[in-house]
Amino acid sequence: MTRLGVLIASTRPQRIGLQLGEHIADFARRHTNADVQIIDLQQVNLPLLNEPRMPSLGDYVHEHTRAWARTITATDSLIIVTPQYNAGYPAPLKNAIDTLYAEWADKPTLIVSYGYHGGEQAAQQLSSVLARVKVALIEPAIAITTSNEQRDEQGFLRDPSALVAAHSAELEAGLKALTASA
Amino acid sequence: MTRLGVLIASTRPQRIGLQLGEHIADFARRHTNADVQIIDLQQVNLPLLNEPRMPSLGDYVHEHTRAWARTITATDSLIIVTPQYNAGYPAPLKNAIDTLYAEWADKPTLIVSYGYHGGEQAAQQLSSVLARVKVALIEPAIAITTSNEQRDEQGFLRDPSALVAAHSAELEAGLKALTASA
Repeated sequence: MTRLGVLIASTRPQRIGLQLGEHIADFARRHTNADVQIIDLQQVNLPLLNEPRMPSLGDYVHEHTRAWARTITATDSLIIVTPQYNAGYPAPLKNAIDTLYAEWADKPTLIVSYGYHGGEQAAQQLSSVLARVKVALIEPAIAITTSNEQRDEQGFLRDPSALVAAHSAELEAGLKALTASA
Repeated sequence: MTRLGVLIASTRPQRIGLQLGEHIADFARRHTNADVQIIDLQQVNLPLLNEPRMPSLGDYVHEHTRAWARTITATDSLIIVTPQYNAGYPAPLKNAIDTLYAEWADKPTLIVSYGYHGGEQAAQQLSSVLARVKVALIEPAIAITTSNEQRDEQGFLRDPSALVAAHSAELEAGLKALTASA
């Protein structure tokens, strides 16, 4: 059984990324026979890159780095669910990518960005980064536009399933490509 | 007296950014009458963005955020000394930017990137981010190309002053623009 990781890039306390990611994971479970797991960077809780040597050398000295490497190695493909902050990717996601190197190579990976304008600039910057670590990028990326009206008083989405359902066709195409190449 | 901050973006243990930044700060002290201070993100030691509300609202609840806001407000202009990791900016720098918002507006800012190919892709992605937080970007950015031959056994630069001196003309032009607009 192919293993699909849904990586939650935001670690903010009031993030909507986990809501979207959980509904994307549910969608993936209904539309594929993959073993779908949430990989939540808030739970992973990686420190900022503190390995003494370049990650491309692979000689990690810290147990947190080795554990993160095992987590990524235990997936056959990935969906990265990322917010856009100031036209770019969030720091916890960049740190999680930069902490490893060889583990990303050839991993079929789909970007799902979200934000007031769908987060397409973050997705574009992220694509350049992912190309450098040699993932097998599944295109096109998916961009989910969110608005303040869709949020409750705490800033959470009232109906994340509707937002995900609005992208069903793109998600189905992305999942097909992900699981075919994994 | 105008206050110039030299922001060290890398927080890795074996970083060369502090070496380059210290020599850039020395250069700035010799060529301007600015009060030049190093702002070292390793010392600032910001946690990953954990404010409950959007930084653009400015209602920071954490003392570490308020202290960081005071540090940036206490500068009239900035030089950001940044490595390139995987075609992008490093996570600690993005986190430091995303943690604030209004504090960056109109701040004259020069990017000095470094890397095997000068870090120009990181500088380009960073420019888009800095435009979003409305800094007054000083162009062109400066790109310092480093090679393994320039490093000692621990990975540090043998002669950082020579690397900085090789960019004297660009630095002088950048400092002139920084201090004129600050």
